[in-house]
Amino acid sequence: MRVAVMERVGEVVVRERPAPRPGPGEVLVRIRAVGICGSDVHYFVEGRIGKFVVTGPIILGHECAGEVAELGAGVSGLAEGERVAIEPGWPCGRCPFCRAGRYNLCPDVRFLATPPDDGAFAEYLAVPADFAFTLPRGMSFAAGAMMEPLAVGVHAARRAGVTAGSSVAVVGAGPIGLLTLQAASAFGATRLFVSDVVEKRLALARELGAEAAVNAAKADVVAEVRRATSGGVDFTFECAGAAQAVGDCIRMLRPGGTLTLVGMTAEGTFPVDVGSLLAGELDVRTVFRYAHCYPLAIELVRTGRVRVEPLVTHRFPLERTAEALRFARDHKAEAIKVLVEV
Amino acid sequence: MRVAVMERVGEVVVRERPAPRPGPGEVLVRIRAVGICGSDVHYFVEGRIGKFVVTGPIILGHECAGEVAELGAGVSGLAEGERVAIEPGWPCGRCPFCRAGRYNLCPDVRFLATPPDDGAFAEYLAVPADFAFTLPRGMSFAAGAMMEPLAVGVHAARRAGVTAGSSVAVVGAGPIGLLTLQAASAFGATRLFVSDVVEKRLALARELGAEAAVNAAKADVVAEVRRATSGGVDFTFECAGAAQAVGDCIRMLRPGGTLTLVGMTAEGTFPVDVGSLLAGELDVRTVFRYAHCYPLAIELVRTGRVRVEPLVTHRFPLERTAEALRFARDHKAEAIKVLVEV
Amino acid sequence: MRVAVMERVGEVVVRERPAPRPGPGEVLVRIRAVGICGSDVHYFVEGRIGKFVVTGPIILGHECAGEVAELGAGVSGLAEGERVAIEPGWPCGRCPFCRAGRYNLCPDVRFLATPPDDGAFAEYLAVPADFAFTLPRGMSFAAGAMMEPLAVGVHAARRAGVTAGSSVAVVGAGPIGLLTLQAASAFGATRLFVSDVVEKRLALARELGAEAAVNAAKADVVAEVRRATSGGVDFTFECAGAAQAVGDCIRMLRPGGTLTLVGMTAEGTFPVDVGSLLAGELDVRTVFRYAHCYPLAIELVRTGRVRVEPLVTHRFPLERTAEALRFARDHKAEAIKVLVEV
Amino acid sequence: MRVAVMERVGEVVVRERPAPRPGPGEVLVRIRAVGICGSDVHYFVEGRIGKFVVTGPIILGHECAGEVAELGAGVSGLAEGERVAIEPGWPCGRCPFCRAGRYNLCPDVRFLATPPDDGAFAEYLAVPADFAFTLPRGMSFAAGAMMEPLAVGVHAARRAGVTAGSSVAVVGAGPIGLLTLQAASAFGATRLFVSDVVEKRLALARELGAEAAVNAAKADVVAEVRRATSGGVDFTFECAGAAQAVGDCIRMLRPGGTLTLVGMTAEGTFPVDVGSLLAGELDVRTVFRYAHCYPLAIELVRTGRVRVEPLVTHRFPLERTAEALRFARDHKAEAIKVLVEV
Repeated sequence: MRVAVMERVGEVVVRERPAPRPGPGEVLVRIRAVGICGSDVHYFVEGRIGKFVVTGPIILGHECAGEVAELGAGVSGLAEGERVAIEPGWPCGRCPFCRAGRYNLCPDVRFLATPPDDGAFAEYLAVPADFAFTLPRGMSFAAGAMMEPLAVGVHAARRAGVTAGSSVAVVGAGPIGLLTLQAASAFGATRLFVSDVVEKRLALARELGAEAAVNAAKADVVAEVRRATSGGVDFTFECAGAAQAVGDCIRMLRPGGTLTLVGMTAEGTFPVDVGSLLAGELDVRTVFRYAHCYPLAIELVRTGRVRVEPLVTHRFPLERTAEALRFARDHKAEAIKVLVEV
Repeated sequence: MRVAVMERVGEVVVRERPAPRPGPGEVLVRIRAVGICGSDVHYFVEGRIGKFVVTGPIILGHECAGEVAELGAGVSGLAEGERVAIEPGWPCGRCPFCRAGRYNLCPDVRFLATPPDDGAFAEYLAVPADFAFTLPRGMSFAAGAMMEPLAVGVHAARRAGVTAGSSVAVVGAGPIGLLTLQAASAFGATRLFVSDVVEKRLALARELGAEAAVNAAKADVVAEVRRATSGGVDFTFECAGAAQAVGDCIRMLRPGGTLTLVGMTAEGTFPVDVGSLLAGELDVRTVFRYAHCYPLAIELVRTGRVRVEPLVTHRFPLERTAEALRFARDHKAEAIKVLVEV
Repeated sequence: MRVAVMERVGEVVVRERPAPRPGPGEVLVRIRAVGICGSDVHYFVEGRIGKFVVTGPIILGHECAGEVAELGAGVSGLAEGERVAIEPGWPCGRCPFCRAGRYNLCPDVRFLATPPDDGAFAEYLAVPADFAFTLPRGMSFAAGAMMEPLAVGVHAARRAGVTAGSSVAVVGAGPIGLLTLQAASAFGATRLFVSDVVEKRLALARELGAEAAVNAAKADVVAEVRRATSGGVDFTFECAGAAQAVGDCIRMLRPGGTLTLVGMTAEGTFPVDVGSLLAGELDVRTVFRYAHCYPLAIELVRTGRVRVEPLVTHRFPLERTAEALRFARDHKAEAIKVLVEV
Repeated sequence: MRVAVMERVGEVVVRERPAPRPGPGEVLVRIRAVGICGSDVHYFVEGRIGKFVVTGPIILGHECAGEVAELGAGVSGLAEGERVAIEPGWPCGRCPFCRAGRYNLCPDVRFLATPPDDGAFAEYLAVPADFAFTLPRGMSFAAGAMMEPLAVGVHAARRAGVTAGSSVAVVGAGPIGLLTLQAASAFGATRLFVSDVVEKRLALARELGAEAAVNAAKADVVAEVRRATSGGVDFTFECAGAAQAVGDCIRMLRPGGTLTLVGMTAEGTFPVDVGSLLAGELDVRTVFRYAHCYPLAIELVRTGRVRVEPLVTHRFPLERTAEALRFARDHKAEAIKVLVEV
C-alpha cells in the first residue's frame, strides 16, 4: 500500500509498504479521508510536542475515516464495506481509568501519529473494532474524519456542564473553537459568542450559530460580551491556545461561571489571574482528548445539530500530503481544515 | 374590575370586584391571557384536588401573563407597561427548601387558584415583582401564559438529566407532554418519541419534532420504540396521568434509564412493576411544579427552540370563562390549550 | 479438588472434581471463605430466581475470598500467596455499558453461582485477575468474603447520593441493611435509623452506629423517624425486600428525599404510593449488584469505617455446606451471615 | 455597650456605644466569643484587603457566637437565651444568585467587619434571625465561633466533591487547612495528607486525623504524597495562600484529580503550571466564603466528626482585643486560633 511517511522532520514522501492485517478483534480499514491537525503540523515543523519526540520515520495523521476492508477474528457488528470513523486512541481497557469510564487518562493508551506510533496517511490501517464507528447514511468520509476534532468539542461542552439556556463565549475560531461552539449549542446553549482575529473564521462562526463574533484585534471582546449578557457568560472556552485568551476567558465569566481550557497545548507555566478566579468563585476545567464522544459526535452531525463540512476548506490527495502539511503550516488564517483524501 | 368567579362548583360568573393594590415589593398586573389547566377543570368539575377543597367562591386560573399597571413600593427592574409572564407560586423565601433553591417544596407557598387562594381570571392581579418575568419583544401574551406549563416541561427535562444526544419517549401528548417533548429537545435530546391516542395531538407532536408519534390505541408503542432504539430509550416521561402509561414508560427504557413522572395527579396507590425497575437499575424521578424555570422557559421560546403558539387551539374572552371551562372539560381530544383572553 | 455441589434442588454433596487451570489473564484462587447469600438459599430451596433456573448440578456461593495459587499468562500486579477478595461478576469489558463504567448492566456478564455458571463452594476457582482485589494486612478471609454484600451497600449509598450530614433510614437489618447502614455512614451520613422485627439484628444495628433501631412489630417506625428528624430523613433504603417496607420508606422521607430500593428481589408488580412520591417530589433509585465498589469496600474496612466481622454469626467447613445452607434457611432471625470456610 | 473599635489602622480601643435594637426579622445577640481571622489581622495591619478599604472607625471580628437577648418583630423558632452561632454574611435573598442557592455570590451581601460594615467585637449585635443557628447542648461559644472557618472548610470539601474513600492532600495547616482536612474526612475521605512548615501545626494535623503531616521545609512533600498514594491523590486543597503551594497542589494530584483553592486571598496574577493541568485533565475549583454550610458545620461538631476546640490556642477578653490582634499578628506559628471572649 502507499503511505505518506515523514522520513525526516519536514520531509514527507510517498512510499510503498506492506498493508497491515487485522488481528483478533480488529478491522482493516481502507482509509479515505484524513484531516490535518495542529499537532501534525507541530511534528512536521518541530519534530516534537512536549515529551513526544520524533526519532525516526513516522506516518502522521489521526483524524480519519474509511471503509471496512477486512474483519479480524472474533469481530461482530461490523461488515466489509461499512463506512466508519476511527477513534484514534486505543486504551488498555483494564486500568482503573478505563474501568471508571475515563479512558482518555489511560497511561497505556496507543494514539495514532504520536511517536513512536504511526498514523493514518496510508491506504490501510488495522484498528480495534470497538474504535471504528459506523457512519450513518449520507455522512461523508470528510465528515467522518471531522469526528475527531468534534469529539474534542463534545468532550469540552460535556465536561464544562453546558445545558439548556447556557450562555457561552469561545475564544479562538479555528476548527476546535468552531466545533466547541456548535457542541455547546447542541448541549442547549442559546447564547453563543466567539472571538478571533481572522475575519474569515468569524464569518464562519456567525454562519454556524454565533450571536456575535468579535474581532479581538479591533474591538474589546470582554466589554462586548459583558454588555450583551449583563455581566458575563456562564461558560467560556479557551480554544486559541494563548495565555492572553485565558485572561479574556476569565474576565468574560459571570460570578460562579466555568472556564474550560480546550486549546492550550503549550507546556509549562504562565501567569493566571487567580485573584479573579477566587473573587468570582470561578471554576476551571481542562480537556485532554475525549472519552465516549464518538457516538454523540456522529449523532449530532446526523441530526444536523452540528455542521462539519463548512470547516473543510482545502483538500489534497495522498500523493500531495507534504504539500497539504505545508499549506496548513503556511496559511493558518485561510485554511480552517485541510483534508487529505486517499 | 371584572373577575370570573366560581361561586359554586361548576358555576362561573363574571362579577365586579375592587381591583387590588400592589403592596411593597409587588406589581399590579393587568392580566391579558390565562390558560386553562387540567387542575382548573378539576376544580370546576369536582371542586377538589386531593387535599385542596373548594369551600367558597374562588377565582380559578394560574397560567397567566399581562402588563405591569403599577409598581408597589421598593420595586425596581420593572416598569409600567412592561409585558410579563407571572410565575403563580410564591414561596416564603426563607425556609430551608427556599434557601437551597428548591422553592417548589416550600411548605408555605401561596399558589394562584389553589383553595383558598384566588387565581387569575380577573382584570388585575397583584404579584410579587420577583415572580413577574419580562417577555422579550415579539412574544405574545398567549405565549406568556404558556410559560407555566412549559416551566413544568423544563423542570422535568432538567430533573431527568436529559442532555445532548439523549433518546426520549413521552407518553401523553397533551400540553404537558408536548412541552416536555420540546424541553427535552432543548436540553439536547436528538431522538424523540411520543405516544397518545388522539391523532390530532400526534400530528402536532410530529410537527414539533417527534421522530415518531405512535397511536397507542392502534400500535404497540413499547415494541416500536424498543425496535427503533435497539433496546430502549434513555429517558421516558409519563405525561398522561395513567397507571397504564407508567408501565409503558418502564418497558420503553434501556437498562440504566430514567423514568420521570410528570403528569400523574392521581392520589394514592397503584401497581408498579418494581421487579423491572430493579432488573434494569432504572431510576424514577418525580416532578412537583417547578423552580427556577421561568427565565429558561422564556429564553427557549425567544430563541425558537420551543414553540408554544401551536398548542393554543381555542380562545375565549373573560366574559365567556364558564364556556371556556366547559369546552376544555368536554373536548379533551380537540382542545389542546384553551385560553381566556382578558 | 473438593467441591460442594447441589446435585438436585435441596441436595448438596461434596464431590471431587479436577481443579481448574488459570487461563490467560486469570489467576487461580485457593478459596478460603464463602458467605451464604439469600440467593444461594433461594436456589437451594426453590431451584430458581426469576428467569434463572437450575437445570443441572450447580456449585453455589459467590461471596468469596482466598489466596492466589497460580498466575495465568500475562498477569501482573498479583503474586502467588496474595490474599484476595473476588468480585464474582465478570462483564465483557467492551459493550457500551462496560465502557461507560456501568458494567453491572453488561448483558454478557458471567456471574458466579448464577445458572448455568458454577460458584465458589470449591477449593479452587479461576478468576480474571482484574476481579481479584488484594486484601490489606490484617483483613481476614471472612472479611474478604463480606466485600460482596458490602459492595452492594456501597453501591446503594453512592447511587443514592448520601453525603456529609445526611439523615438516613434503613428498613431491614439483615446483612445488606447493616452494610448499607455503615456504607451510608462512610459517605458522611450523621443520622442513622434502622427498623427490623428481629431484636438481635436491631441490637447489632445499634452497635454499628444506628442512632435508633426500631422494632417495627412493636412501634410505629414512620412516626418515630419523622419525630426524631422533624419531618423525615433525606434518604431511605429498602433492604427488607417487602412491599410494606417500600411504603414505610416513602413515608419516612422529607420532601425532596430519595428512596433507594436495595433489597427487593421479588419479581413483578406491587402497589406503590405514587401519589406521595409526586406530592413530595421524591426520587426512587434502584440497585442492581454494583460496579467499581470493591476497592472502596476494602478501603472502608481497612480504615475501620465499616465493620464486617460482627455480622458473621456462624461458620461451617466446606464438608458441611449442605448443613450451612439448611441453617441459613431455617434460622433467618438468628443467622445474620453464615460462612463456609474452605 | 462596650465595643472594641479600630479607630485608626492598628489602633483598637474599647468604647461605649448604644446597643443596637433588633429590627423586624432580627434577633439581638449577646456576643460571647469572637475568633480572630486572618482578614481581621489584615485590616488591623494594612487597613485594606483588595478593594475593601478602611476609611473610618470600624469594629472588626466576624467569627462569632452568643446568646439571643431579644427577638425582633415576627421572629419565630428562636427564644431568648438560646445559644447561637452567627453566619456573618447576609445576602439580599432575592437576586438570581440567592434564589439559585449560591447566595455567597450575592452582589448585595452585607458582611460583618468588611468596610464599611462593623463587626462583632462588641457586647451586642443585631442579626437576621435566619442567620443565627442554634448550638446543640454541650457545644461551647468558642466552638460556635469556629463555625465560620469550619463553614469554609465544609464549602471547600463539598465544592471539590470529596466522597467516601477519597484521598486528600491539604497544603497549609492553619485553621482553614485543619478544618478543611476534617471536613474532607467528614465527607468520607479516608486518606489525609497535610503539609506545612510549622511543627506545632503538623502535630495537630496528625492528632486530627492526618495519615501523614509533612514539614515542607524539610522534606519533599510532593514526592512523599505521590509515593504513598501510588501516583497522586484525588483532591488537593490550597490552604496556605502561596503561589508555591499551588504548584505543589498540582503535582500531588493523580490524573483526573481536582485542585481546590481555599486559602488564596492574594489579588492578581501569578504563574500557574497550566501545562500540567491539561496533561492530567485536572480541574480547579475555587471557594469564596460559603453557602448553606452552617447547619452541616454544627452537625459535624455535634456528632464528633469534626473537632474545633483543639484549634483554639489563645483567649483574650474583649478589653484586650488590641492585644489579641497584635498577638495573632506576631505569633502566626504559635497561635492557631486566637479568640476574644466577651
